[in-house]
Amino acid sequence: MDSITPNEIDIVRASSSKINEIDFENLAFGNIFTDHMLMCDFRDGKWQKPTIKPYEPFLLDPSAKVFHYGQAIFEGMKAYKDESDDVWLFRPDENFRRFNASAKRMAMPEVPEDIFLGGLHEILKIEKEWVRKGKGNTLYIRPFMIAIGTGVIAAPSTQYRFMIILSPAKSYYSGEVKVIIAEHFSRAANGGIGAAKAAGNYSAQFYPTKLANDKGFQQIIWTDDATHTKLEEAGTMNVFFRINDTLFTAPTSERILDGVTRKSIISLAEREGIDIQVRSVLVAELVEAAKNGSLKEIFGAGTAAVVNPIVGFSYQDEYFELPKIENSVALKLKDKLTNIQYKLEEDTFGWTVKI
Amino acid sequence: MDSITPNEIDIVRASSSKINEIDFENLAFGNIFTDHMLMCDFRDGKWQKPTIKPYEPFLLDPSAKVFHYGQAIFEGMKAYKDESDDVWLFRPDENFRRFNASAKRMAMPEVPEDIFLGGLHEILKIEKEWVRKGKGNTLYIRPFMIAIGTGVIAAPSTQYRFMIILSPAKSYYSGEVKVIIAEHFSRAANGGIGAAKAAGNYSAQFYPTKLANDKGFQQIIWTDDATHTKLEEAGTMNVFFRINDTLFTAPTSERILDGVTRKSIISLAEREGIDIQVRSVLVAELVEAAKNGSLKEIFGAGTAAVVNPIVGFSYQDEYFELPKIENSVALKLKDKLTNIQYKLEEDTFGWTVKI
Ligand SMILES: Cc1ncc(COP(=O)(O)O)c(C=O)c1O
Ligand SMILES: Cc1ncc(COP(=O)(O)O)c(C=O)c1O
Repeated sequence: MDSITPNEIDIVRASSSKINEIDFENLAFGNIFTDHMLMCDFRDGKWQKPTIKPYEPFLLDPSAKVFHYGQAIFEGMKAYKDESDDVWLFRPDENFRRFNASAKRMAMPEVPEDIFLGGLHEILKIEKEWVRKGKGNTLYIRPFMIAIGTGVIAAPSTQYRFMIILSPAKSYYSGEVKVIIAEHFSRAANGGIGAAKAAGNYSAQFYPTKLANDKGFQQIIWTDDATHTKLEEAGTMNVFFRINDTLFTAPTSERILDGVTRKSIISLAEREGIDIQVRSVLVAELVEAAKNGSLKEIFGAGTAAVVNPIVGFSYQDEYFELPKIENSVALKLKDKLTNIQYKLEEDTFGWTVKI
Repeated sequence: MDSITPNEIDIVRASSSKINEIDFENLAFGNIFTDHMLMCDFRDGKWQKPTIKPYEPFLLDPSAKVFHYGQAIFEGMKAYKDESDDVWLFRPDENFRRFNASAKRMAMPEVPEDIFLGGLHEILKIEKEWVRKGKGNTLYIRPFMIAIGTGVIAAPSTQYRFMIILSPAKSYYSGEVKVIIAEHFSRAANGGIGAAKAAGNYSAQFYPTKLANDKGFQQIIWTDDATHTKLEEAGTMNVFFRINDTLFTAPTSERILDGVTRKSIISLAEREGIDIQVRSVLVAELVEAAKNGSLKEIFGAGTAAVVNPIVGFSYQDEYFELPKIENSVALKLKDKLTNIQYKLEEDTFGWTVKI
């Protein structure tokens, strides 16, 4: 049920488009939005009629619960245009499912499929000019939900707003990515909200990431908060380690986001006959492998960054540079993945969905 | 420096007051706000001129970072009116200090003293009629800061909004409070943001708290996330345990909020000659003490709830009811504390500050 019938949605068209003002070759990630947004409110115990209308600010009460208690979740997806000008989504059912899993963990109402996926189809039909052809060009999709009920008492809201906004984007990280392995700070607790795409998980990382940036590192690879011995994930990417010819990635858990890119990379690796093992990698193993030369690659995987090779890591103030290698598994898997997303190769998995 | 000179603040008065419509005897906590609010924006690297103006909604862009990454912090304070109609704050310097500690952890700019405390004095002068005489009546003060910069990239905002809103209140919990000891879910990670009054810490507790509510318990006492063996704090209160005639409370840490009520209770207990020990209490100790009858009292301490006796707790599906006792230490300390707050007893500590 990816469609929504016209009488289930209000559409108010923008009087003019700003698309001609946009320099699509020089986009900073996530700063420019398309002409329209989708908005749908939950109140009186149910979802109201969704509206697609011109992108614009909206009013909130100073006591709105999102400001005080952080009841807010989001998703990150992309739309891709193929050579025939058709627009495609990549595994949108996974984002829909995860969004509602996040909603549950944050005590927020689940969003029905016809609003989330049906509404997304509708707004993408309207904004299809914003999806540019050519590998690397995408329209980044940001569905999110915030608590708009009022009152400064720490309890779930009774009113929510679901929205979809769209931002044309190239890839997330330009330049080399060096990471620090977390020794003190943490991203998530056992029994916490690390597996949810909850707003608060991200701001919690800003300060430690700033400290890392100051030392010349772009990202942190988080470790388990109890012992800091197990490698978990990066700020907005799951992480893969290649030791000799085996690829490792941590199992998902309450502390780790179940990434769509991660699970797609695992499937692709299996299909390509790459030895892939889903198990925790210890920091000590990684350091050992870096020292004895068996560590060949580290890369992050996520919707925004796609597949992002990491050139080196720091642990206990020692920096380990990764070797420059031929036949990078990261780049091979990235190529396979993006070929499916841009419909340049057959989608044997049935991952792509046409708008 | 608790004052702000008139040319440093813009004041726009509400054309009329809604105070006569308020039933001060039947207030739900945190739902009614006074006529004015304080607002001050941070942009271009500095704090702008604060404004006190009529309480009203404000516009935010759909991509405002507070919605997506939860960069938001708050404080909770109260104003009290004495028998001579003077209005008092309780240890406001502590809230100011903690607010800026939270700001630092969330990569937000610190708010200057003249805006936070000076602005608070100004708005309280305007709203002093909203502070009602009589023990139990207070004006709850909610300073908060949100990231208002735009863009769906997970990085700190460059623009922020600091606000103060005010809500007349009686005490937070009415009725008996029973708690569940956390066995699976957690509030905070080692190296996380548990010690900050960050918005995301609160919504993270809503779902587990709802599960507890469904079982007939009002609150959860959180345990350390790694082992769930050490008792930490409740959702918006620090927790004290009285075993025989000794009072215990957990030391503050990265996982526990450094409560103003907690530290005041500790000082009061010391002054009153009560044996008080700041150390982790193990769940096993608590259960043992409940079984052998040495557990006399459990109570929560926090600005909203003041001192809140807990009548029983559940652990591993076993319910332990606390004895009904005379000479409750909780009630004695609550009385001492509120007498200072309402200026009914001499403030030997110098905790109260006149508006
Ligand atoms: C914490 C975190 N880990 C991993 C990912 C990667 O997930 P996905 O591949 O679904 O984008 C993301 C981004 O969505 C994330 O926010
Ligand atoms: C998590 C948490 N613990 C404890 C407290 C009690 O702190 P205080 O006594 O400063 O209000 C609060 C409320 O402020 C809180 O939010």
